[in-house]
Amino acid sequence: MIGGAEDKDGDCKILREFVRLSGGLDAKIVVMTVATELPREVGDNYIRVFERLGVKDVRIADTADRDDARSSTILESIDKATGVFFTGGDQARITDTLKGTEIHKALLKRYRDGITVGGTSAGASMMSATMIVEGDSETHPRLEIVETDEGMSFLPEVVIDQHFSQRGRIGRLLAAVARKPHLLGLGIDENTAVVVSNHQLEVIGEASCTIVDLKGSSHSNIDTLLRDENLALCDVKLHVLPDGYKFDLATRSPIL
Amino acid sequence: MIGGAEDKDGDCKILREFVRLSGGLDAKIVVMTVATELPREVGDNYIRVFERLGVKDVRIADTADRDDARSSTILESIDKATGVFFTGGDQARITDTLKGTEIHKALLKRYRDGITVGGTSAGASMMSATMIVEGDSETHPRLEIVETDEGMSFLPEVVIDQHFSQRGRIGRLLAAVARKPHLLGLGIDENTAVVVSNHQLEVIGEASCTIVDLKGSSHSNIDTLLRDENLALCDVKLHVLPDGYKFDLATRSPIL
Repeated sequence: MIGGAEDKDGDCKILREFVRLSGGLDAKIVVMTVATELPREVGDNYIRVFERLGVKDVRIADTADRDDARSSTILESIDKATGVFFTGGDQARITDTLKGTEIHKALLKRYRDGITVGGTSAGASMMSATMIVEGDSETHPRLEIVETDEGMSFLPEVVIDQHFSQRGRIGRLLAAVARKPHLLGLGIDENTAVVVSNHQLEVIGEASCTIVDLKGSSHSNIDTLLRDENLALCDVKLHVLPDGYKFDLATRSPIL
Repeated sequence: MIGGAEDKDGDCKILREFVRLSGGLDAKIVVMTVATELPREVGDNYIRVFERLGVKDVRIADTADRDDARSSTILESIDKATGVFFTGGDQARITDTLKGTEIHKALLKRYRDGITVGGTSAGASMMSATMIVEGDSETHPRLEIVETDEGMSFLPEVVIDQHFSQRGRIGRLLAAVARKPHLLGLGIDENTAVVVSNHQLEVIGEASCTIVDLKGSSHSNIDTLLRDENLALCDVKLHVLPDGYKFDLATRSPIL
């Protein structure tokens, strides 16, 4: 899961890792452009990068509406894929178009089989069961600053926010997690990714992943809060993890 | 200490509280305009507000350079004042002009005597012994994004940042505190203030105060870090406290 704005022209550290995890030179990658309104341009851009890294089998799967989401061609591609990559755009377009469809079911099945599912920006946001749809940046936590909905549930135990430090989004991540404090909040920076496997998370890339954990919080006023009132949160646990750092999602602890 | 942009035209909740703490209708207030390059305009603005709230004795003390900082008129005003208010501007102008001068000594003495010393934005930043001089907003924590220097030491045990949520400054506050983890980081939002008395802090105003506490942190990579490298911080304690919430600076715990 990439926080958006990953390097596509230079060393491509993150996309390189995605390809490696998808099988390297033998990877069969499907690029899902459902989130973007410019599927052609965005898709071509990823084809260019993945081909430059030596992947021979890269396909674009564009699903503009729920009818497309039944496409047998796309289902076949997913069936054969070793890696599926969701581009950025609007995360609600992903869930509106794909949630509950055959393609969604196929993706979840292949993900359980062990293929790599990745995404950037909107394509990262949608990975959780509770997804941030939109919200205000650069403000203090209140319920009104963030709208959440059901995500695509590849990683149910978290809430993901992207462009995190670059857009000052800790307020909205805290507000999203405050509603469901059993979830862990992951704020992923631009050109930075979180690789999850076997409930372990590893950070790679330029900046950091910020994790907020409200489970042991000593106090919150969420139960009495109206929509526009200010959240109080006491004793929240915060981790800032740069490249190379690992975190155990099961024990909620950094692996040092 | 006010996070900047406090209401001066409406209900003036925060400035009202400053006046009340300074003695109410009998307050003698000195407005220190040293931080701003527009002392006349800024000073007149505060005179207008404080007079509207019923304070009869309001004086402007403008110290453009260190020579002014010996002014016996200003020293006399400070001697009689029940409240001293520092306007916004550039915090380095406050320390460059006043630090170590007779005025600074007089202010520290009167503060220990129990008068109210307040300030907004730059006037809040300078209150600590370690002061954020400047830094980058909306980015992840690294040493290079924040420059600190000695402040005016009214409240030695903290580091203060202002316009906090509004400018996405948690990265730079974490970076400032990471260097001196025995200090508590206070991020004060706009039109929001923190009132400190007897090592207790109370939040008033529109938004929140964010407190970061690195004392119990399980890991930091600060000792091996070069200037442009990313900070790793594990198990930082975070509190978000809105209006009415209190915090004990000695025990580092919210008072619930």
